[in-house]
Amino acid sequence: MPRWDPEGETRLREAALELFLERGYDSVTVAQITEKAGLTRRTFSRYFADKRDVLFAGSDELPGVIADGIRAANAEASPMDAVLAALDGVAERLATQASIAAQRQAVVRTSPDLQERALTKFAAATDAASAALRDRGVPASTAALLAQVALAIFRTAFSRWLEDPAEASLRDRVHESAVELSGSLSAANVKH
Amino acid sequence: MPRWDPEGETRLREAALELFLERGYDSVTVAQITEKAGLTRRTFSRYFADKRDVLFAGSDELPGVIADGIRAANAEASPMDAVLAALDGVAERLATQASIAAQRQAVVRTSPDLQERALTKFAAATDAASAALRDRGVPASTAALLAQVALAIFRTAFSRWLEDPAEASLRDRVHESAVELSGSLSAANVKH
Repeated sequence: MPRWDPEGETRLREAALELFLERGYDSVTVAQITEKAGLTRRTFSRYFADKRDVLFAGSDELPGVIADGIRAANAEASPMDAVLAALDGVAERLATQASIAAQRQAVVRTSPDLQERALTKFAAATDAASAALRDRGVPASTAALLAQVALAIFRTAFSRWLEDPAEASLRDRVHESAVELSGSLSAANVKH
Repeated sequence: MPRWDPEGETRLREAALELFLERGYDSVTVAQITEKAGLTRRTFSRYFADKRDVLFAGSDELPGVIADGIRAANAEASPMDAVLAALDGVAERLATQASIAAQRQAVVRTSPDLQERALTKFAAATDAASAALRDRGVPASTAALLAQVALAIFRTAFSRWLEDPAEASLRDRVHESAVELSGSLSAANVKH
């Protein structure tokens, strides 16, 4: 086994997800994961704190990636354009991860604890997006509204993408969801 | 003390909120609440299961009120118009509750446990709104998106209303928030 293994993280994640789905999340041990991946506990610890971290390591980055994307957007971009540019950035990072993301979602659905952790993650991403919008001069209350809507768009796009990753990219699903929401609001009796 | 007291629920809620804010939620007992309100434990039990229920009894009704409002909306109403009509119904029920709602929000902010419970309540309201939209023939994925956005609009409107209840009604704040969101999406580079 090579000491340096750029594929180690992916192999461990794949092994863990397979085991979680086969045997149930609660009953799987880190030893079983490393054995299945053909890697050591030391390698596991290089990438993950514990077995729950295998599921959430990626989403830990979500708040930072969204916030950075909003801050990095063109200074002239409207707040919602900055949000959509940030979601494009997230979509790009996840572009090749559909299969892992779908398995991960299936595991999370088996456990109320994991679902609650996922909700907390979304709340953290919403807060980060809201703070980044305020940094662009968006008033606090509007920033909070647009941040919540950004996450709603992203979650919708993500579910649609996972249903059929070959049909459209996550990025396309983000734009499709934003267009749909915009259309729903325009069709409503809301004057502005 | 009269045996029948239509104001009992309100008196108990006011007494509880005052005590929670004065002494901290965790240290207040039901006996202290009933004593302050000048009512019996029996009266308390008629309205509330426990002291946490004093904070959440109203929001227990939120999912049902939103879902009923969406189902009752005019058959020709667009999905977002049905959502806004439902939020109007919620706003009407809460119209006279600004002072209690503000105190309640202040108490919830003091405790991560209570905040988590509030998040779970919003998730339940989102699920109920989503199911009601599906009953109107809205596709599942669109229903979930619009339900999340409905709650985002409502939470924004609610916070704005509590900041200055005299300036505008909750109903007006709901429409203001919807108009603002619609404007943000129209201003973005989202074509539909």
